Amino acid sequence: MRQSQLFTKTQKEAPADEVSKNAQLLIRAGYIHKEMAGVYTLLPLGHRVFTRIIDIIREEINREGGQEVSMTALQDAEIWKKTNRWIDNPDVDAWFTTELKNETRLGLGFTHEEPMTRMAAQYVNSYRDLPFSVYQFQTKFRNETRAKSGIMRTREFVMKDLYSFCKNQQEQDDYYEKIKAAYVRIFDRVGLGDRTYVTFASGGVFSKYSHEFQTLTDAGEDEIYISDEKKIAINKEVLNEEVLKDLGLKQENLRVAKAVEVGNIFNLGTRFSEPLGLTYKNEQGAETPVVMGSYGIGPARVMGTIVETLSDEKGIIWPESVAPFSIHLVTLYKDQHDESFVISEKLYKDLTAVGVEVLWDDREASPGEKFADSDLIGVPMRITVSPKSLEAGGVEMKERKSEQKEIVSIDQFLHMYTKEC
Amino acid sequence: MRQSQLFTKTQKEAPADEVSKNAQLLIRAGYIHKEMAGVYTLLPLGHRVFTRIIDIIREEINREGGQEVSMTALQDAEIWKKTNRWIDNPDVDAWFTTELKNETRLGLGFTHEEPMTRMAAQYVNSYRDLPFSVYQFQTKFRNETRAKSGIMRTREFVMKDLYSFCKNQQEQDDYYEKIKAAYVRIFDRVGLGDRTYVTFASGGVFSKYSHEFQTLTDAGEDEIYISDEKKIAINKEVLNEEVLKDLGLKQENLRVAKAVEVGNIFNLGTRFSEPLGLTYKNEQGAETPVVMGSYGIGPARVMGTIVETLSDEKGIIWPESVAPFSIHLVTLYKDQHDESFVISEKLYKDLTAVGVEVLWDDREASPGEKFADSDLIGVPMRITVSPKSLEAGGVEMKERKSEQKEIVSIDQFLHMYTKEC
Repeated sequence: MRQSQLFTKTQKEAPADEVSKNAQLLIRAGYIHKEMAGVYTLLPLGHRVFTRIIDIIREEINREGGQEVSMTALQDAEIWKKTNRWIDNPDVDAWFTTELKNETRLGLGFTHEEPMTRMAAQYVNSYRDLPFSVYQFQTKFRNETRAKSGIMRTREFVMKDLYSFCKNQQEQDDYYEKIKAAYVRIFDRVGLGDRTYVTFASGGVFSKYSHEFQTLTDAGEDEIYISDEKKIAINKEVLNEEVLKDLGLKQENLRVAKAVEVGNIFNLGTRFSEPLGLTYKNEQGAETPVVMGSYGIGPARVMGTIVETLSDEKGIIWPESVAPFSIHLVTLYKDQHDESFVISEKLYKDLTAVGVEVLWDDREASPGEKFADSDLIGVPMRITVSPKSLEAGGVEMKERKSEQKEIVSIDQFLHMYTKEC
Repeated sequence: MRQSQLFTKTQKEAPADEVSKNAQLLIRAGYIHKEMAGVYTLLPLGHRVFTRIIDIIREEINREGGQEVSMTALQDAEIWKKTNRWIDNPDVDAWFTTELKNETRLGLGFTHEEPMTRMAAQYVNSYRDLPFSVYQFQTKFRNETRAKSGIMRTREFVMKDLYSFCKNQQEQDDYYEKIKAAYVRIFDRVGLGDRTYVTFASGGVFSKYSHEFQTLTDAGEDEIYISDEKKIAINKEVLNEEVLKDLGLKQENLRVAKAVEVGNIFNLGTRFSEPLGLTYKNEQGAETPVVMGSYGIGPARVMGTIVETLSDEKGIIWPESVAPFSIHLVTLYKDQHDESFVISEKLYKDLTAVGVEVLWDDREASPGEKFADSDLIGVPMRITVSPKSLEAGGVEMKERKSEQKEIVSIDQFLHMYTKEC
């Protein structure tokens, strides 16, 4: 895309009320726009990153047989009353509901176990119908009263929520392990693998533990105790002698760190299938409740966590896997007839023709402004075409994460990228 | 996908309260699930069709330079009060709002002109920043009190809404024509071109007409007057002598028909830019309001309209462009060691390996049940592999829309599909 046509612009300053690093950088670079506290629009650059994160998650969940659906935010109160999670339950303070004169009060889903369970009940009769798993990327509403973490905690957000439906606990446990492994792959692929820990957390009624995926960052709201040796962690909330014994760990070998929960997986047992009547006839013909699991990842929280952990004082540094563009082509020119502009235009066309995603800075702006914007936006590879680079024999290549610059010939550069595709 | 793994099943009967043909067929075939009146979940088959419709729309809007974003459903009341469209305005009865004790009342967007205009104002300063256009596929909420048209009119739905921002009316008019042409391409590509008419409708304050894209169907809520000669139509609501004169038409040459609005395009003039302060400095340095347009398509309504218009007494008939799968591979077998099953499995693997989307009916079920399900689901091409077809020399090919059956050799069949990819 030509940067002169991108309708957003970078900004020198973030709004004064944005305290989080992710919101500051993402707003300044033109990835997001703040609508109100805890509510953000994804701008074209942000939408691109968001889509790439979603595509990675989808690919890994499809690999484990997940079937994609799309449920609704509007929720019928009745099914939530059956599981004691409607707004009247004082434990649940996250509900937004609708209210109009003479109208039924509807909920705006903050999660989807209840409608998923009811929907599954329509299709499950026999043991032959199980197991299966269903997921969606769908908008959740949570009435967060303190939304100060940028896009890491918002009042409206897309969540990938996956639900598994199994015949028994063994089958559920097996699927749980598959998704745990899929989540490890997902966080590796989005560039957070190094600093993300499978973390033991409280399990609810049906299992001793659940697992959180916690990424180390000072912006995190959780504290976790890490075993570097086993590459696992324990959420502070559940750390006690029994847990340490279960995991064969000693507290003195653990280090504590702040972290953010980027994913979680739960064994739900029959918590939802029993009250909502999701049963199947087993091989002996007996009605048996389905055993369930749920598995969540918030793509925008992942995006915010990447910014929190992989940025420097100049701006964002996207991993190639989720970057809005692969190449930031920066052209320094006085006149559009200049050789640097003409060559850049040809490079831009040749690369986009073979599917390389290029952001071409074709704007009339100073070199200083262009380089500062490039650092702020954080595309992983910057290619500068200028009278100076051409005199030196080609284009200047610089990775965003490094200070090293290199001149390569135009043919050599084109070969690197067109070969790959 | 193996049909034995698809968690949904077909149903003999639709719920008694579903009066529309689209909801009846889509529920029976397992495309959608009803949550409550006017609120439907997209099941795996439905999600596939929906995604293909969205991809076609996205491709055509990108071609005209649209930049994709994603705004929020939660809406700040303040900007809507400025344009006199907040819930307090008795003209607007579509709003859902949130209500909780001690909380600000938020709206759930039924359209997005206001936040789009405010967002654009942040980035537009000079004539050099214009024109541009921005779009999204985003969830709208409308408090429809009579939701009886299946997925053609729901209380929660995704809309493709595009907004253009121009320096003056001429520039806006030019873009409007481009999008009108893009819409014609979109409705052609999804298989509705034959029966969709560019229809003159009321234009609001800033232009004499807007244009609706109306598709002929008895399920439609509108009446339009069609000129077959000019392939345009006039919405009954605006039909009068002046309109006929404007368009050079005579009422006696028009035929009247029921139709559903599948898209609409509006000149907004400065209706939103003036109250919300979206101005730019023109070449003379004078602050000038931006001239806007808006352009909507609801992908689920398009999906419902396809079902209403392209189905028969046996079920749905999807156009290839939006079908959930390209091929329905139906295997008749007694035992998984049967030649028909073994050959089918190889065909399934070979075809999916080259990217052909195949739904393989590998279920243990009777031929009658399999064929009836295949007709109901409506994949455009059915390939039957049975002892009989193999004896006759290969597989039986049958298009969903035709009664003709043909035996082709396995090599010939594979060649047809693998060549294409």
